[in-house]
Amino acid sequence: MRIGVAGLGLIGGSLALALRGTHEVTGYDTDERARAAAKADGIRIVTRLDELLPADAVLVATPIPAIVPALERLAPHSDGAVLIDTGSLKRAVAEYAARAPAATRIVGGHPMAGTTSAGFSAADPSLFRGRAFLLVPTARSDDAAMTVAGAIAGEIGAVVTVCSADVHDRAMARLVAGPLAAAAALAVAGAQAEPLLRSAGPGFRDSTRLADTPADLATDLLFGNSADAAAAIGSIVEGLTQLRDALERGDREYARSFLRAARSVRSELS
Amino acid sequence: MRIGVAGLGLIGGSLALALRGTHEVTGYDTDERARAAAKADGIRIVTRLDELLPADAVLVATPIPAIVPALERLAPHSDGAVLIDTGSLKRAVAEYAARAPAATRIVGGHPMAGTTSAGFSAADPSLFRGRAFLLVPTARSDDAAMTVAGAIAGEIGAVVTVCSADVHDRAMARLVAGPLAAAAALAVAGAQAEPLLRSAGPGFRDSTRLADTPADLATDLLFGNSADAAAAIGSIVEGLTQLRDALERGDREYARSFLRAARSVRSELS
Repeated sequence: MRIGVAGLGLIGGSLALALRGTHEVTGYDTDERARAAAKADGIRIVTRLDELLPADAVLVATPIPAIVPALERLAPHSDGAVLIDTGSLKRAVAEYAARAPAATRIVGGHPMAGTTSAGFSAADPSLFRGRAFLLVPTARSDDAAMTVAGAIAGEIGAVVTVCSADVHDRAMARLVAGPLAAAAALAVAGAQAEPLLRSAGPGFRDSTRLADTPADLATDLLFGNSADAAAAIGSIVEGLTQLRDALERGDREYARSFLRAARSVRSELS
Repeated sequence: MRIGVAGLGLIGGSLALALRGTHEVTGYDTDERARAAAKADGIRIVTRLDELLPADAVLVATPIPAIVPALERLAPHSDGAVLIDTGSLKRAVAEYAARAPAATRIVGGHPMAGTTSAGFSAADPSLFRGRAFLLVPTARSDDAAMTVAGAIAGEIGAVVTVCSADVHDRAMARLVAGPLAAAAALAVAGAQAEPLLRSAGPGFRDSTRLADTPADLATDLLFGNSADAAAAIGSIVEGLTQLRDALERGDREYARSFLRAARSVRSELS
């Protein structure tokens, strides 16, 4: 296939590197340094978004606020190309798809494989191996479009799961936005551990790793789905408050059963 | 040195394996299976706690509630042996030391190297390499005792930091108890991500890893220092509430500065 990749950061760069062995991959980024880095790594580069077309598929891996504008620019000239975004929020993409030109083919995509590193320099063709790749059909997804999206996800080693935009965005508030907010709150509270902050063990380091997310990216992620993110934070606050109340009234049995419930959720992960 | 190790779980087992190459190490555990596993791995074993004496040092690596009772039993017969516990709370050890027989030598120790795996089968002689080993002098610590404790910590590859029991326990509430409570609350809230829970990426998995801590161990850890743990949870709740309020009033600038502050705490870790 001819595959365009718009946005050559961690996700787009990794997609380009993972797909270029078996497909004709072309990359684009608004940032000249990202284009130069990708070009130096052997990716064919264009200097305007529309030059990614004609193609069989265009993967839109820009920052969240730029996704719908990129789709809007590509759609009128897409001529059958399947447009697949890779952002972590899907409602806005589904909403745009519903008003996109009738012939456009748009599938929402979300590879669950971010790291807190950013930019093409952190790109890794094996980033998606064994990870979930969520696909969200839109009003502009047909069977052929879903097949193309599924084939790309499969080729990079990811495991496809199909869900609706609503289910996706509500779940991501719990799996991405909530953990990000908790990591930030833990890190800020951790400053009170001075002078022993640097003695922190692997538990604190892992728990706060998401707080390394660049602040602009983290802000976009929280505010892109603010109602669900606020609800997810509310659920975490509720759990913490229950544990604190149990501590204050000396109720070990309540705390133990809460901790057991948490452990059983963890056991469902793998 | 002749070194006794009381409690052959993850920490005690790892200490025994790390020290047996250069010292005469003897191990003890209340659990027969733990003794058998350590013996099978070449550790010399005794079947009663007091048989760890005479020794130059005894490392007390039992579960938290058993530490002071073990110190109480060892102290009258310790005859100059330095008793060093390895628990994650230090005030109770310092309080016991203040009323221990005058000739006893007791140093509080805390290697910052736990994992959520438990038992001798998870023991690893390299567990402490590059990690902090906090040493807390007590009313029964003299220079010689601190030197023995520091030498042991250094030999297992850890980095020694000395602090008071108060500073230690307050800091650990932020670095251990708070993250544990947050991981549990995140995992419980994560159940609301169904049917996509299994699609969780590395962020959610790392953020909730501490929720794998066995529930009894986690409960002991929280209730062993309940006032500080409750205060640490309160700080996390406060940060989360600030983020949620910012989301609800659409205040991106506030959220961004909070996230930047969190990131700068992380940058001090390494």
